[in-house]
Formats: sequence, C-alpha cells, structure tokens
Amino acid sequence: MEKHVLSVLVENQSGVLSRMAGLISRRGYNIDSLSVGETEDAAFSRMTIVVRSDQQMLEQMKKQIRKLVDVVKITELKSTHSIYRELVLAKVRVPEDKRVVLENLIMSMKGRIVDMSNQGYFTVEFTGDQDQIESFIDLMHPYGILEMVRTGMTALGKFSA
Amino acid sequence: MEKHVLSVLVENQSGVLSRMAGLISRRGYNIDSLSVGETEDAAFSRMTIVVRSDQQMLEQMKKQIRKLVDVVKITELKSTHSIYRELVLAKVRVPEDKRVVLENLIMSMKGRIVDMSNQGYFTVEFTGDQDQIESFIDLMHPYGILEMVRTGMTALGKFSA
Repeated sequence: MEKHVLSVLVENQSGVLSRMAGLISRRGYNIDSLSVGETEDAAFSRMTIVVRSDQQMLEQMKKQIRKLVDVVKITELKSTHSIYRELVLAKVRVPEDKRVVLENLIMSMKGRIVDMSNQGYFTVEFTGDQDQIESFIDLMHPYGILEMVRTGMTALGKFSA
Repeated sequence: MEKHVLSVLVENQSGVLSRMAGLISRRGYNIDSLSVGETEDAAFSRMTIVVRSDQQMLEQMKKQIRKLVDVVKITELKSTHSIYRELVLAKVRVPEDKRVVLENLIMSMKGRIVDMSNQGYFTVEFTGDQDQIESFIDLMHPYGILEMVRTGMTALGKFSA
C-alpha cells in the first residue's frame, strides 16, 4: 500500500492529540509516523501523519479526520509539490583510528556532531528527506549505530498555503 | 505542570501507535508532542512523548505504558543527561531589499534554506533544542512566517543505553 502524507491544522486545545489518537485507534489506521507541533499562530498546531493505505481508505480517513471538532484544515502533501523532512539522532561508534575519517564523512553529508563528550561514540544529528536519511544511516552502519531515534516525517507544501 | 520527556522502545508491530494513542486518549494524558520512528534495529521503533504532568500522574502513566504488550522499555530522559532536538520548517517572507541580510541571518543561526524557488519567501529548516528553536522563530518573526510546522521533540540519553 502506498504512503500518503497528511498535514492537519488543528485548534491548539489540550486533548486534540488524544482525539486524533482515539480516531486512529478505533479505526485501526496503518500509521507509519505522526508528529505534532506549534505553528505560525499560537492558536493552532499542525500534525503530520504518514499513513499506508489505498485510495479508498485514504478518502475515508480524510473524511473522518475532517469531522473531528478541532480540525481546521486537512491537506494531502504529495511529494512533487512538497518538502519532506525528518530528523534523526544517532549514537555512532568511533573507532580510535577512524575518528577523523568519520568526522569528515559526517561533515560531507551535512550531518552535525551534537555531542562528542563520550569516549567511543559521537551523537550525530542528520536531517533530510526519506532517501537522504536512508543513505546517511547506510553510511553510518559499518561504524556501528548504538542507539537511534527519528522524529517521523514532517512536511510543508512548496507553494503558498 | 512540568514537562517530562519519555522515550519508549516498542516492538515494530503495525498497531502499536494505535494502542499507545488509545491509552493516551482513554486516560486523557496531557501530551505536548509525540513522535515516532525507526531505530537502530528494524524490529523496534522508538517513541518520544512530551507530557505535562505532576510526579504522581507521571508515575501512573509510566506504569500504564509499561503494561502495553508491545512496549520493551520506557526511559525518562531528563534535560541534564539528554540531548533534546526538534526540527522546524518555516516559510519566511523575503523582502526584496533584505534578501541578503536574511540569508546571512539564517546562515549565522545554522538554519538551512531548503527551497527558494518561490518568489517572496524562503522555506527554511532549523534544528535545535527548545530554547534554540524559540530564538530562531523570534528572529524570523519580524520578516513574517507564512507557514510553519514542527516535528515535536525527540531525544537520546547522553550516556550508553
């Protein structure tokens, strides 16, 4: 089933995430990721939901979400017209004799070493679209990824809202 | 009420997000943000949940989460021992006569212009902890933020897992 990215503008009421979560839970939607944060207007939050579904289930889901009381607007953000972005934090093992090689590799990928206070590993931040994130992880793998966390995808349409 | 950051390692089953969402929904927990993504091991996902609660409710919540069938491990990540990170995407208005000033400002903040194909605004990516994100937004505000989305916070402990 195909991945779809939904951007949902909601009123910033306590409980709106719970109501969305309740809907997803009841209907059993197949969610890859969900992230939520503040917007340009303190009264609203924006949720980004990545769902795997066929077209029919997607339309049904959009309809159900639109019905939630706090939902102001729902937009499907297609890859051709959108900017997709995800953040990953990873602890990457640093072999003593490859420290400089690894630092240069991370810099060449535009990753950022956010903590090197521990012997034996760097904590690295990397952002990009899905493909770039996968490439970065593939390059770090040979060194050893001790721990990793990802935010799930967030997105904005390329053109005016 | 204080903010607490919970990092929850879960088995990567379809439906685990729904079960977590169901728990949050039923119990009415006061969630600031929730993000979820893959980990260093394809069999597991890691959720980062930011919740506002007193100590008693937090302990109850941890207990409830631990009971969920797919939950492997739950850790509270305190700010002193953790790296917090969030990603924001924002469309920032570009006044014709301040284009270079704005570009320099974004670069000096280590923000990244990810799209400048539209007349009139940049799409900018910025990452940091909560304070850095707030500072960045404050600096962009005078130019005009047309649209903004945030991933919610993600986090890793500073020391070995």
